[in-house]
Order: sequence, then C-alpha cells, then structure tokens
Amino acid sequence: MLDFIFNAKNVAVIGASDRPGKIGFEIFRNIVEGGFQGKIYPINPKITELMGHTCYRTIKDVPDTVDLAVIVIPAPIIPEVLEQCGEKGVKGVIIISAGFSEVGNFELENKIVNIARKYGMRIVGPNCAGIVNTHQNLFPTIEVRPPKGFIAFVSQSGALGGAILMKAKEEQFGISIFASYGNACDVNESDILEYLMEDENSKVVVIYIEAVKNGRRFIETSRKLSLKKPLIGIKAGKTEAGTRAVASHTGSLAGQEKIYEAAFKQAGIISVEDFDEMFDISKVLLHQPPAKGNKIAIITNSGGPAVMLTDACETFGLKIPPTPEKTKKKLSFLPHVCSLENPIDLVADASYERYRKTLETLVVEDWIDGIIVVHVPPVWIDAREPAKAVVDVYKQGVNKPIIACWMAGEPVKEAIKILEENNIPNFPTPRKAAKAMWALVERGKILKRLKEQQL
Amino acid sequence: MLDFIFNAKNVAVIGASDRPGKIGFEIFRNIVEGGFQGKIYPINPKITELMGHTCYRTIKDVPDTVDLAVIVIPAPIIPEVLEQCGEKGVKGVIIISAGFSEVGNFELENKIVNIARKYGMRIVGPNCAGIVNTHQNLFPTIEVRPPKGFIAFVSQSGALGGAILMKAKEEQFGISIFASYGNACDVNESDILEYLMEDENSKVVVIYIEAVKNGRRFIETSRKLSLKKPLIGIKAGKTEAGTRAVASHTGSLAGQEKIYEAAFKQAGIISVEDFDEMFDISKVLLHQPPAKGNKIAIITNSGGPAVMLTDACETFGLKIPPTPEKTKKKLSFLPHVCSLENPIDLVADASYERYRKTLETLVVEDWIDGIIVVHVPPVWIDAREPAKAVVDVYKQGVNKPIIACWMAGEPVKEAIKILEENNIPNFPTPRKAAKAMWALVERGKILKRLKEQQL
Repeated sequence: MLDFIFNAKNVAVIGASDRPGKIGFEIFRNIVEGGFQGKIYPINPKITELMGHTCYRTIKDVPDTVDLAVIVIPAPIIPEVLEQCGEKGVKGVIIISAGFSEVGNFELENKIVNIARKYGMRIVGPNCAGIVNTHQNLFPTIEVRPPKGFIAFVSQSGALGGAILMKAKEEQFGISIFASYGNACDVNESDILEYLMEDENSKVVVIYIEAVKNGRRFIETSRKLSLKKPLIGIKAGKTEAGTRAVASHTGSLAGQEKIYEAAFKQAGIISVEDFDEMFDISKVLLHQPPAKGNKIAIITNSGGPAVMLTDACETFGLKIPPTPEKTKKKLSFLPHVCSLENPIDLVADASYERYRKTLETLVVEDWIDGIIVVHVPPVWIDAREPAKAVVDVYKQGVNKPIIACWMAGEPVKEAIKILEENNIPNFPTPRKAAKAMWALVERGKILKRLKEQQL
Repeated sequence: MLDFIFNAKNVAVIGASDRPGKIGFEIFRNIVEGGFQGKIYPINPKITELMGHTCYRTIKDVPDTVDLAVIVIPAPIIPEVLEQCGEKGVKGVIIISAGFSEVGNFELENKIVNIARKYGMRIVGPNCAGIVNTHQNLFPTIEVRPPKGFIAFVSQSGALGGAILMKAKEEQFGISIFASYGNACDVNESDILEYLMEDENSKVVVIYIEAVKNGRRFIETSRKLSLKKPLIGIKAGKTEAGTRAVASHTGSLAGQEKIYEAAFKQAGIISVEDFDEMFDISKVLLHQPPAKGNKIAIITNSGGPAVMLTDACETFGLKIPPTPEKTKKKLSFLPHVCSLENPIDLVADASYERYRKTLETLVVEDWIDGIIVVHVPPVWIDAREPAKAVVDVYKQGVNKPIIACWMAGEPVKEAIKILEENNIPNFPTPRKAAKAMWALVERGKILKRLKEQQL
C-alpha cells in the first residue's frame, strides 16, 4: 500500500537547497550520497543544478511522473505546493516541516489532509524526520544513514529516531526500514505496521510510541504482524509524570501504565524499556528461534558470573532447574573438579573439547528450553576455542535457542566475531544475556497465545 | 593494617616462571611491566634470572627483608614454602593457587592459616586472582592492568574481577585498588573494606559478594566506610536458584534476597544489578555530590527522550514535579515554542544561550534537588555548544548534582568529552541517566540516615 513511498522509483525534494546546514541541503545530500538508483529531482526556483541533478522551478516542471515528493519548505506555503503535487500525480509526500498541530495549528493540518485526500495522495508527517529504506538505498531523511539490515524501526519521535539511527550507524547494526511519522495527519503507526508486515527485508519490527490514536486498529494490526514476525515496543509516557510530559510535548494523551501493558500484551508486543535493551532484543530475535518454555541451562567456566546470570534469569521469570540425574550421568566425562549442577561449571581451564561435548549433551535434553553459554577467559585460554565449540555444535542443527555471554573486553572480541558471524548473539553482561533469553521465551509465549486465539 | 600488602615496598614471586602462558610467568610479567618501583624477587630454583631480575632458589636466599610474597606453586607444597616465608619475616602473602576449601580440602587450608598465625603473616586467598594498587604501580595479579583512578573494586570471584578489570582497561575507567580475596581463609571482605576506608586514593568502593562469613562485622565495617565514602555492592546468589548456584560454586551459603536487602540497607550499601550499572554508578558517585531529595528537573531539546527519562525517573522513585508558576516567570525569556513544564523543552534548535540561561535559572531553585540535561543533536546544531553551556554554569559553583544525557553516537563524542573532563558524567540512554540520578538520591538518603544514627 505504501510501496510508492518506501519503494519509490523516483524522488523530488521540494525546497532542496545548495546551502550546507539547511535541512533542504542535508536531506538532498542524504538521498544523493545514499546511492539511490532512481531519478532525483531537486525543486527550487532559485537554482538550476544541485549535486549534478537538474533543478526545477516547481514539481510540475519535472519531465516525468513522480512517485514521492519530500517537502521541506515553510508550513504556510505547503498547501499551494501540495496542490501542485496532486495535479502532477504524485503518489506519496513526506512533509518534514513543522508548524502544524504540534503547535496548535490544526486548521493548517486539516487543510493539507483535505488536499491529499482530494488527489488520493498519502502524507507521512508533517513534523517528522523522514524515512529510510536501506535495501533501496533510499534515504529521504534528516538523520544519519544506518547500515543495511533486517530490523525495521518506526518512531513517533523524530529526535529519538535520529538517536537510534546514530547508534545503529556507530555499532554497525543493520536497519531495513526507518519511518518517523511525526504528527501522523494521514499515515499513522498502523499503516506503517501493515506495510512492514509484507516487507520481506524487515524480519523484526521495533516501534516507539508516545500515544496511539486508534487503539483498536493498532492492536489488531500488531497482532497480525506478531504472527509473522517479532514486534518490539517502547512505550513512553507510562508513569503519571511521563504522561504529563507527553501531553506538553505532543498535545496528545498518553495512557496509564496498566492500560498500555494490557494492550501491549493483547497486541503480542515484546515490551522493552531502553535503547540498549531494544538493540539487544532485536538482535536476539533476529538470529535465534523462540524458546518453547522457560527452563534454561547455563554452561560456564566461571562461578561468579554464572551466579549473577542465574539471579538475573530468575528475576525475569526464567527457571534454572537442577540437572537431572540422567543428564549428570551423560556428563560424567567431565573432570571431577567441574560442577554438574545447573549452572554447569566447566572451571577456568575449559577449552574447546569440554565446551563442545557438554553443549552436545545438553542440546538434545528435553528438560531444557534454551541454553546460555558463558565464558570469562583466563589469561592462558584462547577465548576463540570455546566460541568455535559453540559454533560447531550449533551448525549440526539445534532446535532450541543458544546465546552467548563472552565477558570482558579486548581478548574476547575475536571470539564474539566468530559467534555472531554464525548467528549466535553475544551479550557482555549477565543481566543483558538473561534479558535476551527472556525475550526468546516471551516470543515463544506470544506465538503460542496468538496461534491458539486464531483457532 | 594491610599496608604491607597494598603498599608493599618489595615483592617476591614464589613460583615465578620463564614460560609464557604459565601463571607464574604472567603474574611476574605484570609486576615488571606494571612499572613497580620497589625490588622484585623471582623465586625459582631452576632459573637464575628473569626479565632482568636475579632469581633465587628460595625466599630465604633473598638478600633483604621481604614485605609481600605472591605464591603460585601447587597447593600441596605451599605449607613448606609458607614456613620459609614466616622464617624470613615476610609480612603478607597472596596465594593465587587453588586446591583448598573450594574443592573440599579444608585440612590444607587450616594448615596454612595456622602457619600464617604462628608468624603473624596475613594471607590473601588462596584461590584468588591477586591484588592491584595502581597508585603504586603494583600489579601482583593474573588479570589485566587497569588504568589509574579512584574506584576501588573488591571481588570474591576472581574471574568476575578479571572481567571488570578488562572492561575498565577497555573503557579507560580508572581503578585505585583491586582485591580478589578468593577463599578468604584469613583476610576477608571486612579487612579489605577497613583498609580502603583509610586509602585516600579510593574515593568510591565497589564490592562483589557471593556470601559473607561474618555478617555483623561486615555490616559494621560497611557503615563506617559509607560515612566516609560511597559504597556500592553487587550481591550474587539472591534468588533461590542463585543461592543453589553459589553453594555448588564456593561451598558457602548465600542468603535469601530479603535478608541481604535488609543487610545492604543497614550497611549503607548502594545496590546495583549488573556490571554496566556498576560502572555508571561508580562514575556518578565519584564526580557528583549526593542529592538532598528526590525532586528532579529535566532540561531537554527533544520531547521523546525526555518522556522516556521521566518514566525511568519515576520508576526509580524520583519525582519530576511540575514547574511552579514563579519559576515559569523567570523562564519567560524562552521562545514561546518552548515548553516550561518540567521536563523543560528548549526544542530542537536550542544551543548555547538557551541551555545556559535555563540552567542558570534552575540551579538556584529550591524545589529542585538534582538536574538532568538532555541533548539529542539535530544535524544543524553543534552538540558541543550546549555542553559548554552546562560546564560554564557548573563552574560558577552549584550545590546540587547535575548530570548529562547527550544521546547518540559519533556527533556527540566531543561534547561528552567536554562534559566529563569537567566532572559532569554523561549517560547515553534515559534509563541509565535516571539510574545514575537515583544513585545520587540514594547516597543522600544513606548519609542522612547514617548520620542520624550516629547522634
């Protein structure tokens, strides 16, 4: 439905500028430098050429049809330009400019919505940061260009979306689609979720929400999407003071914590609380399957971190059951300094062989729904060896999630690379690893619940 | 009391080795490469010289008195060597070697304790990772050498201590003292806390605990230390499964969550849950004063992140009170697109002037106990400018804590440098900033309570 926006064949920028620092310059530069393969049309009556592209006085002067127009001119003159877009047959517009309902100017916002309806155009914005589709090298946004990947990020707040994209760029975290929808005068969160449901490059979807306008549709759309792919939500304005802050920020009402909690649950959304967590949980849901239950085994070479991990798992509602006798017998190849109790402690000098054989034994045990492998490298052990052990077992085919917790700095970087290149995500602290496993358990529960409700 | 260990004038390494990869080599290299200024004596009957230092057959052959002996030989021959240390007049020994009570060999452990008592020697360990005093360039440890600083870190678990030191090194996070005390056959957590109480270079103390042997003494020592400097605690083995994990790891009993919570509170310990949090909270307590109450003002240039921050603050028990009318009047210099409600939103294009004048107005307001300044840089704003504004106000002298939340990647790195060089710690996500401010509020409460109890 929104294909002519996210997969636009060509783009016009109305208000493209030749002055660095101006939004009309930055957004045009982003599109050009992003390597977009379709035609790019700068629209500005005062210049004739911009970064090698012929500049046109108005959109009507463009000698071709236009899929997508990005508008960065002052709010008061937007209605006139929008009429021109309609007459030209433009299908989608992104209005970056502010000065509409967010500052109380509902009249102007209604006016642009009516013009768009008249011509059958769709509007993203106004007052937004634009969109990104890395798989089309399409970057009509004022934010930085993130690397290509499989996580879609939808954000009501432009600034927050920008912060996320910067972090994504810094950490080489791959994004498929980014959409900042601002005032949502036309295209809203549910429209974008519907689009992402069908987008094959978006394998995990993250949404940041302050307030939802049509709660019922949002829940229904989210449920449908959740059946196909994991949906992660960050809700701002949960507490009383937070709600007040949303009201003064957007003019819309954010609901109370309990109501949103219930709605998120109904919608099949995995709720996260901070950006770090959002990245971690996106990563784990992208690479590992949901867990069928909450019983987790821990393999470690170090007691302390495993104890912290055990605590963190229990705090998040996961279970670390004692090792059954039958499994202990299978693990009898381990030296007797090792502890066979879950967490199974292979002690400090454990390397490839001990990790591999233990993991091989555990992956087929039916009392285990997921496995977290911990390694704190002593100076005399190469942290890559146990990483290779985990990868070798994983490659044989495993039907439950495995994640890693290689802790601490420089010496483990190469090991983490080996793990993550093979789709075993690593989390550098016990709490982060526990939260990631929680997300896989939660995803399993959600899928089960949604499928039961379908019957 | 433990000065002859942490401030040893000279060090012998019994079991120093010339084979890289061996613990006896790594620990000796750490001492030499760490730049220790006192004499260093390798003890090994099979070699004559090690890294430029004359090697001796036994400790008794060293032609000088010895403060500290580090022992890395196999457990069974340690009693004999310990007798030699006693006869030589060694004051402190660190026993790195394992094979004592942690594997059930209580007899051997009792034996070494008795020998040490006979000669008035103190033992750190056995089964530990050693100690560090960066201010003496003293690194008798198997772990990496962290940079010099003012945070002391005490860890029952050697591996976990090692992981922390690696992270400290990677992030250039300054450590004063590190002490891994392993089985604590003699020197225990309370002894080390007593030492750190008097150590002027340790301005914040962090302790990782699995189980405490003498609870009453630990609480008393912690209370005394807390009156002088902040004490942060990480307790592992809180949940039932965690307790079981500690039992199988150390053979000692970890208590139930509620009991430890009460004990931590009585002891004036600020409790943290994960390593990241430990670093964040150490940093904020090192650089900012305690808050006198829990009422926090937020200054921001972006609505979304401020809403998330408000939620996170409320979750941690902080209050974000509405801005009183009298303060709104004082803020009337702000453009009317700004929101004067707390969080005070200076909107996206806010730079030096708006941040400076707003902060100047707020720092003297008596309804505010602490201030969090947020900045998400739009592409056209230099993130360093508002950072300079915060620093300029801070330098005029401020009697309440100020922390920063400059979000997102590359463009803000320089800004964060400006802030942190001026003792204003930055936290990259709303939740982290809220937790850091919580710690300052908590520290204020603890000091108040402990001082009242003293009267």
